[in-house]
Parts: sequence; C-alpha cells; structure tokens
Amino acid sequence: MARCDELAAVSEEPGCLTRRYLTPPAKIVHQRLAGWMTDASLTPRVDNAGNLIGRLSGRGTRRVLLIGSHLDTVPNAGKYDGVLGVLMGLAVAERLRGEDLPFHLDVVGFSEEEGVRFSKPYLGCSALSGDFLPEWLDRRDAAGVSMRQAIADFGLDPDAVGSCIYDPADVLGFIEPHLEQGPVLEHAKLPVGMVSGIAGQSRLRVAFHGAAAHAGTTPMDRRQDALLCAAQFVTAVRARALSVEGLRATVGSVRVTPNAPNVVAAAAELSLDVRHAEDAQRESAVRDLIAAGHEAAASEGARFEVLEETSQSAVLMDHKLSSLLRESIEECGGPPTSILSGAGHDAVIMAGRFPVSMLFLRHPGAVSHHPDERVEAEDVAVGIDVLTRFVLRLARQLRSTA
Amino acid sequence: MARCDELAAVSEEPGCLTRRYLTPPAKIVHQRLAGWMTDASLTPRVDNAGNLIGRLSGRGTRRVLLIGSHLDTVPNAGKYDGVLGVLMGLAVAERLRGEDLPFHLDVVGFSEEEGVRFSKPYLGCSALSGDFLPEWLDRRDAAGVSMRQAIADFGLDPDAVGSCIYDPADVLGFIEPHLEQGPVLEHAKLPVGMVSGIAGQSRLRVAFHGAAAHAGTTPMDRRQDALLCAAQFVTAVRARALSVEGLRATVGSVRVTPNAPNVVAAAAELSLDVRHAEDAQRESAVRDLIAAGHEAAASEGARFEVLEETSQSAVLMDHKLSSLLRESIEECGGPPTSILSGAGHDAVIMAGRFPVSMLFLRHPGAVSHHPDERVEAEDVAVGIDVLTRFVLRLARQLRSTA
Repeated sequence: MARCDELAAVSEEPGCLTRRYLTPPAKIVHQRLAGWMTDASLTPRVDNAGNLIGRLSGRGTRRVLLIGSHLDTVPNAGKYDGVLGVLMGLAVAERLRGEDLPFHLDVVGFSEEEGVRFSKPYLGCSALSGDFLPEWLDRRDAAGVSMRQAIADFGLDPDAVGSCIYDPADVLGFIEPHLEQGPVLEHAKLPVGMVSGIAGQSRLRVAFHGAAAHAGTTPMDRRQDALLCAAQFVTAVRARALSVEGLRATVGSVRVTPNAPNVVAAAAELSLDVRHAEDAQRESAVRDLIAAGHEAAASEGARFEVLEETSQSAVLMDHKLSSLLRESIEECGGPPTSILSGAGHDAVIMAGRFPVSMLFLRHPGAVSHHPDERVEAEDVAVGIDVLTRFVLRLARQLRSTA
Repeated sequence: MARCDELAAVSEEPGCLTRRYLTPPAKIVHQRLAGWMTDASLTPRVDNAGNLIGRLSGRGTRRVLLIGSHLDTVPNAGKYDGVLGVLMGLAVAERLRGEDLPFHLDVVGFSEEEGVRFSKPYLGCSALSGDFLPEWLDRRDAAGVSMRQAIADFGLDPDAVGSCIYDPADVLGFIEPHLEQGPVLEHAKLPVGMVSGIAGQSRLRVAFHGAAAHAGTTPMDRRQDALLCAAQFVTAVRARALSVEGLRATVGSVRVTPNAPNVVAAAAELSLDVRHAEDAQRESAVRDLIAAGHEAAASEGARFEVLEETSQSAVLMDHKLSSLLRESIEECGGPPTSILSGAGHDAVIMAGRFPVSMLFLRHPGAVSHHPDERVEAEDVAVGIDVLTRFVLRLARQLRSTA
C-alpha cells in the first residue's frame, strides 16, 4: 500500500495522478520498481515496448509464469488501477524468494493499457503477445510526437518491438490481479474473487436526423424531433438490457444539435456500449437495438444511422489455471465466487496467445478511474496470499507431472 | 423586397447577416431608412434607446398609431425577421402620403428585440412603453462594454431613455407585421393571417443527479443513470404536450456529465420550454412535468432538481384593432384565419401599455433565424394592402365618432 502511495506521486501533473505511456514519470516509476525488484532478488529489464519485467529465475527451465498488470494511468486517475497488480506480483515474488521454482516467475509492469497517449489501448501486452502492429509506430500523440519517436526518446529501439514477444511454448500462463471495478465482491462481502471471463463488447456511435424547428411555433404533430427519438432509444436500450441475464447496455454520451432551449433538435448523436459474456447474446442485442433505433426514427419521420460499430469478442479464462486459483482461494478460507469482468484488461490480449486467469479484489464503492478509487489493505493481503499459494500449487503440479 | 436585400448587406460580419444593438451597421441602417422616410414625407428621428421613428404627421392631433417591428438580428440571420415589418410600415406610410389622417402614423424600427448583445431582449420597445429599467444600463456585452457606454457611443443620452416613452393616452395602438415563423398559413394556403394572441411561455432548466458508474461492470439493477431519467422526462414532455390542444412543450437542450461512452451518466441538465395561449393550461403542464421529473428520478434512485424557472404570461390582441384588421383582410378577399403566435415579439411588451394587434405573413418552410428564411413578394404586397386599408378604416372610424 505504501508503494502504491509512492508511485501515485509520480505524475505528469502536480496534485493529481496522470501517467501516460513513455512519459518522464513512467521512467521514474521504472527506476523505483527496478530497485525494489533487485532488492527482492529479481532481475529487472525494460523491453523495447517499454514494459518493465522483473524475473525471479527458476532452475534450469525455459518455462515462465507471468504475473502483473499495467503501469500507465488515465488522466486524474486513482492509485490502484493497474499498478496494484504489478506490486502484488512483486510481493508474491518476494515471498517466493528462495523457493526452488520449476519455472521463471516474471513480474510484468505493462507500459500501456489505457490507450490515452496514442488513442490505442493494450500496447504493452500486444508487444509481448506478438499482436503489436508495426504501423502503430506512426501514430502521433496530441503534441504530434510519433510513437516511434517516443520509444526512441525513452532509450529503446522502435524497430525491435518484435523482440518483446514471449514464445507461447514457454509460457505457463499469465495471471493478472486487478480491482474489480464493480460492486459484486463488496455486495458478497468477499475480499477476492475469480474472474470467469471478460465480456465481449460492442461500441457503436449512432445518430438521429430530424429537423430543426421553432419550439414556440411548430405544432407538436409537425415535428421531427431528433431528441425525442434519442429518448425513445435510450429507454429501449435499458429495456433490452433487462431482458437478458448479464447483459449490459449503456448510452453514456449524447450530443444534440443545435442544443438550444427554443429549437426542436435537428440531430442527436449517441454512444451505445453493449457487453455480455456470450458473443451471440451481445450480437443479438445490438441487432435488436439497431432495429429499435430505426423504429424510434420512423415514429417521428426522422432518420436513424449507425455511424460506427466496433466489437471485441468475449474472452474465457484458462480452465487449468482457474482450477488452481479456485483451490488457492478455498485454501485461504474464502468461497471462490466467479465474476464476469465487464471491463477490458491486458488479459484480453494475452488470452489470445497464452493461458490466462485473473484475480479480482473487492472494490469499495466501485469508484474507478478517479482519485477516490480505494482498496482495503486486508483484501490486498488476502490477494497476495492467494496468489502465492497459486504459484506454489502450480509448482507442485509441475513437479509431480515431471 | 429590394430594400430587405439592401439592408441585409449591412452586417457586422462579411458573408452573413449579424446586426446587434447599437453596432456600426445599426447606424448605417438608420441612415438608409431615414433617407427613405424623408423621401416619403416622413420626419425621422432616433430616440435615446436607439429606436428609429419616422412620423407621417396627422392634422392637429396628439393621437398616434404605431406600426413596425425591430431592426436588430440574431447572428447569421435571415433577411426578413423584424426588418420586413418596419419596411412594410414604411410602404404603408408611402401609400398614405397626402391622406389627411386624423392621427400621426409613426413607423417604428425598434433598436433591439433579439437580446443578443446584452442578453436582454425587448430593449427598444421597453423604452417606448416605459418598461425600461435604469439598471439595465449597467449590463455589459461580451467585450465588456456597458449598455450606458454603447448608447453614449451611438451619440445618444443614456440618462434620457425615459424621454422615449409614449403617453398611453395618445396611442391609438401598435400594429406589428411579422413573418409567421410557423407553418399554419403555408398549410392553409393563405398569404396573411390575424394573430389571436401571443402564447405565454415558461422556460425551465432542470437536472437529474444520478451516479457515475462503469458501463461494463455495473449491473443494470444497480444503476442511477441520469440519462435514462432524462429520456423518460423527454418522453413525458411529448406525451403531456399532446394531451392538450395548442400546448407546445419542448426539450431542445441536453448536457450530460461526464458524457463518456463507457460511463453511466452522473448528471443530465435539460431545458424545458412550455407555451400555451392560456396561462392556466401552461402552468398546469409545468406542474405536471415537474412531477414527471421527480417520478423519473425516483424510478432510478436519482434526484430531480429545477435549477431555474422563468415565465411570461400570454398576451391578447386588442379587440377593436383586431376587428378592423379582420375587416381589412376580408376586404382584400382573404378569409381572416387566426393564429396564436408561439414566438415572442415587440408586441408582447407593447401590449402591456397600448392596444396591440399583429399581422402574420405566410412563411414558406417556416425557416426562422437562418439565412434560408424566405417570404413571397406577392404575400408582402397583400400584407401592405391589408395594412393600408386598416389605417384608412381606423381613420374613417375616428372621423365618424369625432
């Protein structure tokens, strides 16, 4: 917890925590962490994507278990999102120092997950998994600096990002500890929980096109009110979300044109965010909501348009790692509740190449991406206990099958 | 129509028409209009509120009939809103030159109706009616210039705005020709129409306060979604508007916080505009909609708040003047359709002190406050005819009762 406080002070802005990819504070965080890693008998290195990796070496093996999360933050962030997972990984390694593990334990601090600087998330883990596309190097930040330049300025080689890749044949798995960012564990009064999977997500931008008209002179039956269409759509989104267990559908953003009190809205642009553990459920909801948009528009003589649609499939956790994690939680005295992660994580990308599991920590108030983000020290202690047992169980299992 | 074109070129901005109160283009418009007035045997003057008034003198009388509208515009305005009424008044006076009228005919170009420069509408007519408050002189425009300074800079005396007042004992009435700013005459295929009254108006700013939450991790039944409340409110506003003949209720503006696609809305601020010819109907609708706001909030565990509420009572047209206007329309061969004005006009303020009537012109497309604003020359000709007959009827009536 003290280390979280210390790293939270390393920010681009005084008075609040903002730490984007490859900025000077990212370098300071690397220096501090590398120091702690060295003290704990780990060997730290920074790869060419800016990931900090500290290895607790196993004996005579190429196999490796990765544990960690990301070190970058959103603007005005909380102290725990990402970095807590890295520090918990380090705490586990500290406890296991001297153990004769049949694999390397790599504590990973991913350089970039939030996507703030280059409007592209998951850069660090993509470099490890082999999903980093060279054309991303040409992306520029708000100040016009290319990613290629930023990597070089950080003292790394942008043309050697390929060297970050882990060979899937060597990787036993990746385990990511993270705040829940939701209320389930708090409600269940449990310190930690298993993650059953990461929900697939569809992101849409949609628009209603009506007609601007004078609010005082235009009769109600001669209006094409884009905001009324939007209101019917928002209501339909909630109704559809409630129709299926586990479905989450949200309109979080609305932009009305001209947005004047005395003018009937000519246009309304809305975001739509749909998530579910099962891709088929999510896709069916998106189809229905697009139909609902057309219906709302038709009732007002307006027009509905899907401006943009992107989606990401659901991710399942590895069965074998999850069994070990369940047993470790039970060993610590807790019932192993399973939670679907509604948010994306480094584990989403890692799961495409490696066995992956996640451990969630109780998140009081579920306040996320905000300075009020909290976690209880007792829950973190339980999490470190669970993860230490998890590593030892994996080691025992490998020894027994060797 | 040519004069409308000529004055539309007198603007603060090249390429579009913007002419705010007491700006240099307002002075140029005064010079052009004063020239045309003089040519038509009117005596022009500018009062200390910046109103341009041209008098066609009657014989041996203190009585006066006012006819006109306003000369200022909204930003990026059309060519006819306001100024057409002044030029129609001038055209009527031109036709009546040589008539021996038993009253003065004052063609009025009000200096300020739209309220753009000092965020305060109806300044010109308020000066004439005696409703101008001296503290308004301390208001400042966006550049920090006080109204007092602007009046002085225009060559007028800000401490003598009181001298603009017309004695109600002398005033036979004010008649304002104006674009309908609505679709009724176009639908009825009529060039002009009577105005039955000007709707009362309530303007509210309301807000829903929910709780920000992660769109991916927060279960649907644990949300306090301010945008969902807003959607229910917008739907309720439409339903209530449809429940009463002639009621107009509009939400034209919405501001969502934080307005991010992946965050459940913490707050939503909305405008509400309610208008009706009968104040009791309007007030009842506002009461019901405030109740609907609280209900929408309660269903989501959120909070509803009325941030601001202002209202203006409905205005009735003068019965005697309206009878004369009806007869004049019939004399020109048209059925005298009555239209409720949903928009505010100089006539709203004038009606507090003087008999008032309005003539609406057919408004193709009803496009208002926009460069695409149109009017047909034939309809303007009918309007000038109707108004000329109206003045002559009033003169005959006064002579016969004298």
